[in-house]
Amino acid sequence: MMQNIYDRLDFFEGYSQLGRSVEGLEGAVEWAALRRMLPDISGLRVVDLGCGFGWFCRWARGQGAAQALGIDVSERMLTRARTTTSDGAITYERADLERLELPEASFGLAYSSLALHYIKDVARLFGVIHRALVPSGRFVFSTEHPIYMAPRNPGWSIDADGKKTWPLDRYFVEGPRTTNWLAKGVVKHHRTIGTTLNLLIQCGFTIQHVEEFCPTADQIAAKPELAEELERPMFLLVAAQRNG
Amino acid sequence: MMQNIYDRLDFFEGYSQLGRSVEGLEGAVEWAALRRMLPDISGLRVVDLGCGFGWFCRWARGQGAAQALGIDVSERMLTRARTTTSDGAITYERADLERLELPEASFGLAYSSLALHYIKDVARLFGVIHRALVPSGRFVFSTEHPIYMAPRNPGWSIDADGKKTWPLDRYFVEGPRTTNWLAKGVVKHHRTIGTTLNLLIQCGFTIQHVEEFCPTADQIAAKPELAEELERPMFLLVAAQRNG
Repeated sequence: MMQNIYDRLDFFEGYSQLGRSVEGLEGAVEWAALRRMLPDISGLRVVDLGCGFGWFCRWARGQGAAQALGIDVSERMLTRARTTTSDGAITYERADLERLELPEASFGLAYSSLALHYIKDVARLFGVIHRALVPSGRFVFSTEHPIYMAPRNPGWSIDADGKKTWPLDRYFVEGPRTTNWLAKGVVKHHRTIGTTLNLLIQCGFTIQHVEEFCPTADQIAAKPELAEELERPMFLLVAAQRNG
Repeated sequence: MMQNIYDRLDFFEGYSQLGRSVEGLEGAVEWAALRRMLPDISGLRVVDLGCGFGWFCRWARGQGAAQALGIDVSERMLTRARTTTSDGAITYERADLERLELPEASFGLAYSSLALHYIKDVARLFGVIHRALVPSGRFVFSTEHPIYMAPRNPGWSIDADGKKTWPLDRYFVEGPRTTNWLAKGVVKHHRTIGTTLNLLIQCGFTIQHVEEFCPTADQIAAKPELAEELERPMFLLVAAQRNG
């Protein structure tokens, strides 16, 4: 069973204050980059793994998706998601992504935003997603970048001349990482980029695009604290296609 | 024109002392991993970009390659390579990889070991390689990992509890990096993993395998100083296939 931190009140309240929770997709710095990696979703059946408050499902319907299924382990998040729409083509279901089952060959797009780093057995989940897609269906996701997740002590260091560096270690020690983000004891699962991409390829996906999120000059001008994101990648964005 | 450091006597003499120069392929820690990514090369025409002393060309012929073409910018290295074989199916040619031309649809395998990080315009070179391969031909290469190349000050830091970390910065600042390795003023060209993979995909390659080199437990037992390689990746290994 995956850790259900989003139903812990301390975590949920912290998460609800984030820009991405208040403003939705446009409040997430990496959304524009991830959006460019999406196919034309008009007419597609879409599934969002780790749908949270359901922003993506509603956006997908606005883009003409035929149906949108949002899946999350957090009852608190799903409850709020359900209050935001009366669209009969949007469904929210509670499920543990470690044990998820989906109907076969049913979706044109599987999407997941910043949920996969909570999953221990991502190989199983990739297999479920592959089978749930129609031939040539797309899988587009973001996850925390392994450089961000690997270190024993993830955080900036200021070196002798005042420059920020990100002290990397344990890159090849895959497995759980416990951090304090919004609440204590949040468990994530570190995997190298190679592991993630090779698992996708072995499942029968073709890699279409790999992006390590970097803010644009405009984003940094509007929000100067984003400049530190040039030093090391925080998010990994991948677009893949189910082989025919 | 690419920097021709290997013809500088100080660099060449230093390079000639390395395990990989003295012992050949088996003297390179990453060779076993790279070898596993190669196709069956029996009967193939093979080109090695940055062939150095020609170890790979000779090995490929030993594996049954029909022909092997080794290309390098260094006359010193080619001169030595030519003294090591009288095999008429092995040819060594001098060329600048920044300006390389190859005959179209002529090779079943293009190989390159630790040469691409010296190349500024790798998009051009990937295009040349793509056109030089037969349909479904393979391109297998190693390059310095961007985590290894990016920092202003690439090197280990020892933190308060005596643990090694690799202070990463400038990951998204792509471009030249000047380091002192065997000789002063060696210029390499840093690119993110995303950039390298996306350029391959845009050229018409399918990514088959991405490996960030990590020594095995046996390698660490035999050579304990390799244990630090678990902290951050030094080499990126990629296998790709020309689309049909």
